[in-house]
Amino acid sequence: MKNRFSFILIAILITYGITPAQTTQTDSVAVEDFKPASTNQPGRQYPQVNSEGRVRASISAPEALRVQLDISAVKYDLTKDAEGVWTGDSAPQDEGFHYYQLWIDGAAVPDPGSLFFYGASRWGSGIEIPAKDQDFYALKNVPHGQVREHIYYSKSDTSMRRCFIYTPPGYDKDTAKRYPVLYLQHGGGEDETGWSNQGRANLIMDNLIAGGKAEPFIIVMDNGTWRWPNNVPRPPRGERPRGTWPPAGWADGFKKILLEDIIPMIDADYRTLADPAKRAMAGLSMGGMQTRAITLANPEIFFYVGMFSGGSISVEDINNSPAFKENVKLLFVSYGSRELENRRAGFGGDPKANTEALKEMGINTHFYVSPQTAHEWQSWRRSLYEFASLLFKN
Amino acid sequence: MKNRFSFILIAILITYGITPAQTTQTDSVAVEDFKPASTNQPGRQYPQVNSEGRVRASISAPEALRVQLDISAVKYDLTKDAEGVWTGDSAPQDEGFHYYQLWIDGAAVPDPGSLFFYGASRWGSGIEIPAKDQDFYALKNVPHGQVREHIYYSKSDTSMRRCFIYTPPGYDKDTAKRYPVLYLQHGGGEDETGWSNQGRANLIMDNLIAGGKAEPFIIVMDNGTWRWPNNVPRPPRGERPRGTWPPAGWADGFKKILLEDIIPMIDADYRTLADPAKRAMAGLSMGGMQTRAITLANPEIFFYVGMFSGGSISVEDINNSPAFKENVKLLFVSYGSRELENRRAGFGGDPKANTEALKEMGINTHFYVSPQTAHEWQSWRRSLYEFASLLFKN
Repeated sequence: MKNRFSFILIAILITYGITPAQTTQTDSVAVEDFKPASTNQPGRQYPQVNSEGRVRASISAPEALRVQLDISAVKYDLTKDAEGVWTGDSAPQDEGFHYYQLWIDGAAVPDPGSLFFYGASRWGSGIEIPAKDQDFYALKNVPHGQVREHIYYSKSDTSMRRCFIYTPPGYDKDTAKRYPVLYLQHGGGEDETGWSNQGRANLIMDNLIAGGKAEPFIIVMDNGTWRWPNNVPRPPRGERPRGTWPPAGWADGFKKILLEDIIPMIDADYRTLADPAKRAMAGLSMGGMQTRAITLANPEIFFYVGMFSGGSISVEDINNSPAFKENVKLLFVSYGSRELENRRAGFGGDPKANTEALKEMGINTHFYVSPQTAHEWQSWRRSLYEFASLLFKN
Repeated sequence: MKNRFSFILIAILITYGITPAQTTQTDSVAVEDFKPASTNQPGRQYPQVNSEGRVRASISAPEALRVQLDISAVKYDLTKDAEGVWTGDSAPQDEGFHYYQLWIDGAAVPDPGSLFFYGASRWGSGIEIPAKDQDFYALKNVPHGQVREHIYYSKSDTSMRRCFIYTPPGYDKDTAKRYPVLYLQHGGGEDETGWSNQGRANLIMDNLIAGGKAEPFIIVMDNGTWRWPNNVPRPPRGERPRGTWPPAGWADGFKKILLEDIIPMIDADYRTLADPAKRAMAGLSMGGMQTRAITLANPEIFFYVGMFSGGSISVEDINNSPAFKENVKLLFVSYGSRELENRRAGFGGDPKANTEALKEMGINTHFYVSPQTAHEWQSWRRSLYEFASLLFKN
């Protein structure tokens, strides 16, 4: 159990950009159909993306000696023209959203052409590679819900905090209607802005609801960033944590805030169905692991559970939490296909085998694999789409 | 009239960073009490600010030849240490919020240590210089309203748009209560995010309401960015517009969206007092000029008017709009003191003299000067605070 968690956490740290990047020249000639990315700042011509999914970066840096585009853990050298503008292409990228940055003479900086997103523990550049299925998260002329910034004081954390709340279309019209709630968590190095900014959770829900494919529900997106517990000694700096790492109760900090502050506040301030049979928790990567730890330990609070690229639940886990087995109405587990290819999803047991075993136990379990995506937002957008279509229907 | 507008628009363009920046070394030795800025990204140690209001920037760029901090239209050379980290200080800055950027070997980039804000027609770095009066926009444990992202389809613009809506504390509790509405506009090169991100409009209102100093009201913050009208020929590129520039009706594009789409939508979707005697328009800089043009031409729509660093209204203007004179319940005009010192506020006539003349005509006019601030957000935060304290009280 402990070793499994170590592996998961280390894998997640690695995914979020701690691996040393390779340096390379672009491998072959690009198809010249580049267009400005949809994630560019208003009016900016660069970065661009072509039909192969290559990213073309460009920046004026007339006095620079070396400029690189750093995306998906590879650095690509740009070349300088007579006006001092550096330009160059990446290899083809997977469909969907990717974090990236530029290096200018050894300085890692955001690309001033892109919009900025919080990930890899920083506000920095992101880019959208058009996807064949992008319609499900597109901005369309359908009824739209709202994303609300909700500022609050946390008694258990003695701090001012904020979360973002998605209320579905029509929430302010029929003031008698009450809604189920999904508590939806980001990954390591991300924050409460991730699911609406790069995840496009609100647009996914608006489109699902407009198409009659999902029940309308409220989504609460808070900050689950893990902090080292005050009562547990830290391992020496630079020593690779293992064995007893992470400490038991690693998810307790956010769990306390979630159960003692957030859920009571949401049930008081919004028109919720304050019923565990109408309450879900889900998350991606670290947020999926938090979902796993919190829902297994509190099966009386959440009857719907989603883990996106964040492990799975085994027969042993279920046998250790009989109330979970009795209560759970939906257990949804997903991964990007490239995570499975790279055996990244093997921790906690094979998620597909776990799903089959749990099905045989009579649990309503779903296993979803996002085609040709890795530990990235496109996997999690698709996971939310699939999960939301199943939620609160039984 | 046309020349006056030319001057205003050119002055505003200049303010938003089009002036060539001077290059300088820091002028004297800084007081060594620097602390990380409150506008830094989580956990970042730089940029820092000291008690004089100097900004200290620092970035690792081991291969760079020249790195500069560019703030308030001055570039300051940084110096490199043995580890390749460049560090340097600006001259003392005025209290409040300032946009800035770094230059690395000729590339203008955001500082990866700061949070990012939309201004000067880009998402880029901003920094908060602590102010003696910062308590009025501080995040405190008081009841908080919400800022909601509201996505909509504009029929008059045939486009998807968004605005941000501030609803006051308690809006969702007493669902019988209706509220006045302030339509609040940003400046040139800014957008619908400015008033809540760098303006802190929501926190200013939360604190005012908690202190019993303002009536609770709804604030609508939309994007008033001026676009060249389709039916007016553009001047040749590079030719300084003058004479007939800007064309008559320059504010008509946003006016149409505001009057035909936004106001009817807000009155339908929120619990407003849909009454011109309970409706205000205000704005900063370009937004103040839009407020001036739109409210003078539509005195039956808005009975409360605020112009922050965006001109003033003369006796002649009033005489040309008798319904404005009859209807207006509050006309609020403000500037930063440094704008008055630099005669930046002289356009449209002396705003203080205009105020006195309008008072003699029996109009409820207020003139406010923000101490020791320029054409910057601290002037506009203070202006909103003063204006909001007066709004909807008569």
